[in-house]
Amino acid sequence: MSDVQIELTYPDGSKHSFPAGTTGAQVAASIGKRLAADALAVKLDNEVLDLARPIHKSGSFSVVTPTSRKGDLNPDGLYCIRHSCAHVMAEAICRLWPETKLVYGPPVDDGFYYDIDLEHKISTEEFAKIEAEMKKIVEEKRPFTRIELSRSEGMKKVLAEGNPYKKENAERAEGTVLSFYVTGPEPGKFWEDLCRGPHVPDTGRIGGFKVMSVAGAYLHGDQSQKQLQRVYGTAFPTQKDLEDHLRRLEDAKKNDHRKLGRELKIYIFDDDVGPGLPLWLPNGAAIIEELERLAKETEAAAGYVRVKTPHICKEKLYQTSGHLPYYADSMFPPMEFEGVKYYLKPMNCPHHHKIFGSELRSYRDLPLRLAEYGTCYRYEQSGELFGLMRVRSMQMNDAHIYCTLDQFEQEFLAVCHMYLGYFKIFGIDKYVMRFSTHGAEGLGKKYVDQPELWKKTEDLVRRALKNGEIPTEEVSNEAAFYGPKIDVQVWSAIGREFTLATNQVDFAVPARFGLTYKAADNSDQTPLCIHRAPLGTHERFIGFLIEHFGGLFPLWLSPVQMRVANITDKQEEAARQAVKQLRAAGFRVEEDLGHGKINAKVADSEAAKIPYLLVIGEREAASGSVAVRGRGRKDLGTLPLAQFIAQSQEAVANRTR
Amino acid sequence: MSDVQIELTYPDGSKHSFPAGTTGAQVAASIGKRLAADALAVKLDNEVLDLARPIHKSGSFSVVTPTSRKGDLNPDGLYCIRHSCAHVMAEAICRLWPETKLVYGPPVDDGFYYDIDLEHKISTEEFAKIEAEMKKIVEEKRPFTRIELSRSEGMKKVLAEGNPYKKENAERAEGTVLSFYVTGPEPGKFWEDLCRGPHVPDTGRIGGFKVMSVAGAYLHGDQSQKQLQRVYGTAFPTQKDLEDHLRRLEDAKKNDHRKLGRELKIYIFDDDVGPGLPLWLPNGAAIIEELERLAKETEAAAGYVRVKTPHICKEKLYQTSGHLPYYADSMFPPMEFEGVKYYLKPMNCPHHHKIFGSELRSYRDLPLRLAEYGTCYRYEQSGELFGLMRVRSMQMNDAHIYCTLDQFEQEFLAVCHMYLGYFKIFGIDKYVMRFSTHGAEGLGKKYVDQPELWKKTEDLVRRALKNGEIPTEEVSNEAAFYGPKIDVQVWSAIGREFTLATNQVDFAVPARFGLTYKAADNSDQTPLCIHRAPLGTHERFIGFLIEHFGGLFPLWLSPVQMRVANITDKQEEAARQAVKQLRAAGFRVEEDLGHGKINAKVADSEAAKIPYLLVIGEREAASGSVAVRGRGRKDLGTLPLAQFIAQSQEAVANRTR
Repeated sequence: MSDVQIELTYPDGSKHSFPAGTTGAQVAASIGKRLAADALAVKLDNEVLDLARPIHKSGSFSVVTPTSRKGDLNPDGLYCIRHSCAHVMAEAICRLWPETKLVYGPPVDDGFYYDIDLEHKISTEEFAKIEAEMKKIVEEKRPFTRIELSRSEGMKKVLAEGNPYKKENAERAEGTVLSFYVTGPEPGKFWEDLCRGPHVPDTGRIGGFKVMSVAGAYLHGDQSQKQLQRVYGTAFPTQKDLEDHLRRLEDAKKNDHRKLGRELKIYIFDDDVGPGLPLWLPNGAAIIEELERLAKETEAAAGYVRVKTPHICKEKLYQTSGHLPYYADSMFPPMEFEGVKYYLKPMNCPHHHKIFGSELRSYRDLPLRLAEYGTCYRYEQSGELFGLMRVRSMQMNDAHIYCTLDQFEQEFLAVCHMYLGYFKIFGIDKYVMRFSTHGAEGLGKKYVDQPELWKKTEDLVRRALKNGEIPTEEVSNEAAFYGPKIDVQVWSAIGREFTLATNQVDFAVPARFGLTYKAADNSDQTPLCIHRAPLGTHERFIGFLIEHFGGLFPLWLSPVQMRVANITDKQEEAARQAVKQLRAAGFRVEEDLGHGKINAKVADSEAAKIPYLLVIGEREAASGSVAVRGRGRKDLGTLPLAQFIAQSQEAVANRTR
Repeated sequence: MSDVQIELTYPDGSKHSFPAGTTGAQVAASIGKRLAADALAVKLDNEVLDLARPIHKSGSFSVVTPTSRKGDLNPDGLYCIRHSCAHVMAEAICRLWPETKLVYGPPVDDGFYYDIDLEHKISTEEFAKIEAEMKKIVEEKRPFTRIELSRSEGMKKVLAEGNPYKKENAERAEGTVLSFYVTGPEPGKFWEDLCRGPHVPDTGRIGGFKVMSVAGAYLHGDQSQKQLQRVYGTAFPTQKDLEDHLRRLEDAKKNDHRKLGRELKIYIFDDDVGPGLPLWLPNGAAIIEELERLAKETEAAAGYVRVKTPHICKEKLYQTSGHLPYYADSMFPPMEFEGVKYYLKPMNCPHHHKIFGSELRSYRDLPLRLAEYGTCYRYEQSGELFGLMRVRSMQMNDAHIYCTLDQFEQEFLAVCHMYLGYFKIFGIDKYVMRFSTHGAEGLGKKYVDQPELWKKTEDLVRRALKNGEIPTEEVSNEAAFYGPKIDVQVWSAIGREFTLATNQVDFAVPARFGLTYKAADNSDQTPLCIHRAPLGTHERFIGFLIEHFGGLFPLWLSPVQMRVANITDKQEEAARQAVKQLRAAGFRVEEDLGHGKINAKVADSEAAKIPYLLVIGEREAASGSVAVRGRGRKDLGTLPLAQFIAQSQEAVANRTR
C-alpha cells in the first residue's frame, strides 16, 4: 500500500480510485462479495493477473470469472484454469515418476499439454493413475503462490534443480525478474515451477479435468532434437462443463465431415487426381445441385443476372487486379505458351470486371449484379489441406454488385439480409458478423493507400449496418486489400465454428480496371463493387452442413430422399410402380427390392441416413399406399402414396428442415 | 475400239460388257437417252472421267449427273462444272487483259479460283465485265477437247507459250503424258490450258456462274514468293441453283453466330483473358442454364446420376488413360509443383473412371451412368480458333455409361434415341449418324491393338443400330483410339453443316484403369464404357443454335423472354406490376419504361429479337391486360395478363418452338 492512487476503469465505463498496490482480489471484493467469490483472476488492460498480484498502474479493469454474463465460458478464465491444471498434472506425474524432467506446459485450444522427458513411456492405461493423483491435489485446494526473484537469484535456483530444459526456459525468459509458482502457501515445502502465470487462486477452482492423450513431440518441434512425450489434458470450471465438452468431442468425431463424407458417399479424394481436389460422388453432386438451385432462385428473385467465365486467363489480368505478384504464393504456377503465362483463376472478380467493362454502362444500368458459381483454384500447402475445409479447388457462390454510391446502402443491406435468410433455411442459430476495418499503419502495404476512401467507405458500411440493425462486431486492421469486409462466422449444431463467407466492399479495384459508368450529369464515374458469397464454397459449406446436420440432411437436401422396399417378392411390381411415381414426382429415390428381411432393409436405410423408407407389404400393395418409416426408426403410419407425395413435395418446396 | 472386252459394274450391281475403248458417253447412251443428255461425266472406280474419254479397263461405273436421285447436287458434277468454269473465267480474263499469266485454277468448296499474275489490279467493279465475257463463252456451248501429248512434246508446247508458271506445273505433273484441254472442238484456234481434267462436255453445261471476289495470294502460299491475284468464282448446274447458293450465303452472313453473338450480347472474347476463351454474358448464361436444365431433366429421367470433378489432375492419370504422351499437343502445358505435373483436363473420362473405381461394383450396380457438364480445356492453334466453333474452353454435355455386355445394346440405343429426342426439340430435321469403324492397318498405331475386340464391339454396334432402326452411314478407318464411334452431323435451318457430337464405345480404357465389377458368377469382369455428349459443348452447340434460329430463339431458350413497355408515364406503375408478376411466374423479363415513343420501343424489342413485347396503354392498365406484339411485328391481340402467363408457361414447359 502507498499514498499513490491508481484509477481503474470498469467495463461499464465508471472510474474508481485505489491506492497503488491494491490486489485484484481486494478490488473484486470492493465491487461485491459474490463477484469476489467467483473471481479467478483480473484483467488490467489486456493482461490477465493473479487475484493476489498488487496493482500498480491505472487502466481498464475487469474481473475474470468462469462464465461471461451471457453464460458462455470465459476464455480468460479457461486459460487460467488450464494453465493451473497443467501444473497440477505435472506435479502428479512427478510424484508417480520422480525421474521426470519437465520441459514446458502451456494452455492450448481445448485444454493444455505438458512436454516431459521421461524414459518410461506413459500409456493410456496410466491416465487414471495420473488423474487420481491430480484429484488429491485439487481436493487439497492449495493456493498458487507467486515468487519473484532477481534474474541472478532465479538462475541460481534453476541451476540447483539441475533440469537443463528449465535452465533454457529461464535463459529465454524476458524481463528483470524470474517468477516461480508454488502450488501451496509458501516455497520450499510444496511443488513449484518456473512460470510467468497467471493462475487461479487455488487448485480447488479446477472443477473438472481429464488427461486426454499422449504423443511424441520433438524439443522445439525440431526433428534433430530429442523426442519427448507430450501429455494432453483439459480442464473446466465445473465437472458438468467437462462432460459437455467430452460429449461435443464425441459428437464431432461421429459427425466429422470426413468420416460421414466417406460413409454417405458424398466425395472422395484420389491420389492420381491430386490432394485437395475432391471428386464429388452422385450423393455429393445432388447436394451441390440443390444448393445451386437455392442460390439461383434466391439471386434471380434479388435481381441478379448470371454469367459464366473460363477457369484460366492471362497473367496480365492479375497484374491489373493487383493479385500478382503479391498473391502468387496462393496461386497455382502458370502454364506458359505462345509467350504468355496463363493462370488458373484464384477468384472470379477480374473476369466479372471484364464483363462489366465490355460495354458502355449508364447509371440506369446499375446496380448490375453478376452472379456465377465459379470454380476457383488456390494453392494451399499439402500440410494445410483438411478434408473439405481446406482444399485447392473451390466452387464459389460468387457475385459482384456494381453500384453507385447512392445505391450502396440498399445493396449492402440486401446482401446482409440474404445471409440471414440462408441462416434461417439451414437452421444456423448462432453466427457472428465481424466488420473488419483497415489499420492506418498498413496503408500502402496491406491496404490500398487511399486513407480518405477508406474512411468514407467504412463510414458507409457502419451506417448501413446501423440503419439495417445488423448486429456486428467491429475489428480493426483485418480488412481486405481493397476495402472493408464483413466476415461471417457460424456455429454448427454440434458447436463447431466455421468461417463461412465474406462480404467485401471494393472501392479500389474497379478503378484499376478502368470501369466507369455515365452518371445522370453525363460525367464518368467509377462504380463501387460489393464482393459477396453467402454460401461460401460448395466444399466448405457442404463440409459444414454434413457436420451441422450430422448427415441427417433435411428432405430437400438429402442426396437420396426416400427408399422403397417390398416385404416379399409378391410386392415387387407394386414397389417398382411406387418408385416410378416418386421419380416422376421429382424425387431422388432408391429401391431395395432384394429378398432380404424387412428388418435388414430398415437397418440399411437407417445406416444410409435416408429420410424415408417406404415399405410395401400385401396390404399397402392392395391399397396403393406405403408404410412410412422416418429416420430414427420412426413409424409414421400408412399413407396413400399420393398423399405422401403431396406432403413431401410441399416439404421440399418450402425447404422444411 | 478393239476386240478386248471390259466389264462395267453399275450402281445397282449389274455387270455389262463393252469393247475396250468405248467412251463414257456411249455407255450412258446405252443405258438411256435421258441419262445421256443429263450426263456431265462418268465415274470409273473412284476416278471421274470426261464423257468423251475412251474406257480401257473394267470397274465399277456410274454416270455423273448434276443431281443425285434424291435431288441433292452431286459433288462430282459440281467439281466438273466448276473446274470447267475456271477455264472459262481464265479465258475471259485473258481476253480482257491479254498480258495475264495464268498460274493455277482448281475447284474448291463452294466454287473455284484462278491464281493469275497480272500487273493491273482487278477490282470488284470489273467482275461484271469478266462475267459478260464468260457469258459469251458459255452461250457458244463450246466443247472441252482433251489433247494428250508425250511429256517431251508437251513440254515443248508449254515452253513455246513462255509462261513460267505453266512450265513449273508441267514439270510437276505426274505420268507419261501431259494433257491439255481446248475450249473448242480442235486445238490451235481456241483457248487452251494445261490441265488434268475432267471437264463437262461443253461450256453450255455451266448453268449459273458468278465471279465472287479477288484477293492477294502468294505463289505456293510462300510469303517470300511473288504476290499473285486470286480470283474466286462459283458455278452451278442451273441459274436457280446459283441463286439458292447466293441466298444461303447471304443468310449465313446475317446469321453468323459471331455477328449475332455480339449483337445479342451472348458472349465476348477479351484480350486480357485470352483467345478461344469465351466469357458468357448474362444472355449467354441464360441459354446455358436452359440447356443444362434440359440435359439434367432428360438424364435424370433416363436414370443417370450426376458427379462433379475438378478441372485439373496429375500427369499420371493421363498416362494411365493413354492420352499422354500422344495427345499432349492438344493439351495445355502442365503446371508443375511439389515435383508433380498437373494438367487441365482435356476430357472428363479419366475422372469418371476414378469415380467408378472408387468402390466395389457388382453387376447389380450396372448400368452406372455418370453425367457431368464438365468444362474441358484443349489447346488449339491460335490460327484455328473460330468464334464459338473452335475454342479452348469447352463445357461438355458429358456422360459415361458403364455396362455389361448384355446391357450394351439397350444402353447404346437409348443414347441414340436421346440424340433423336433432342433433334426434335431443336427442330433439327437434317442429320447424319456416321458409324466409324477401325482400319486394320491402324492397329497398334491409331487404334488399340486388339483386333478381336474391335470386331466384337463393331458387330455389337452394327447389330444395335440395325435392331434399333437407326439410319447410319458406315465409314471405315475413322474410329476413336479405344473403340468405334458414331459421329453426328447436323445441318442448321440455314443449311450450314456442323459436327455436333460423338457417341463412342470404349472397350479398352476401362481395363487400363483396372475397372471391374463382380459378375453374377462372382468373377471379376471389365465393364464396357459408352462415352456420349448429345448436346456437344455449350460453345459449339450454342454457336449452332444461334445460326440455326438466326437469333430468334424459341421462348423457352430466349435469354430475354419478354419485354414490358408503357405507352405513357401514367402506365408506369401498371407496367412495373406486370414485370413483377411475370418474374414471379418464372420468366426472364426486361422493362422499357422510358419516355420514348411506342414505335421506338417496338423497334428496340425487334432488334433485340425478344419473343414478346407486352404493351400497356390506358385500356390495358385499366383491365389488367397486355397488348401482345410477337417477333416480326406480329399483333397478337390483347390478353388478360394471367392468360398470357398461363399460355407462355405452357410453351416453356413443352419447349415449344
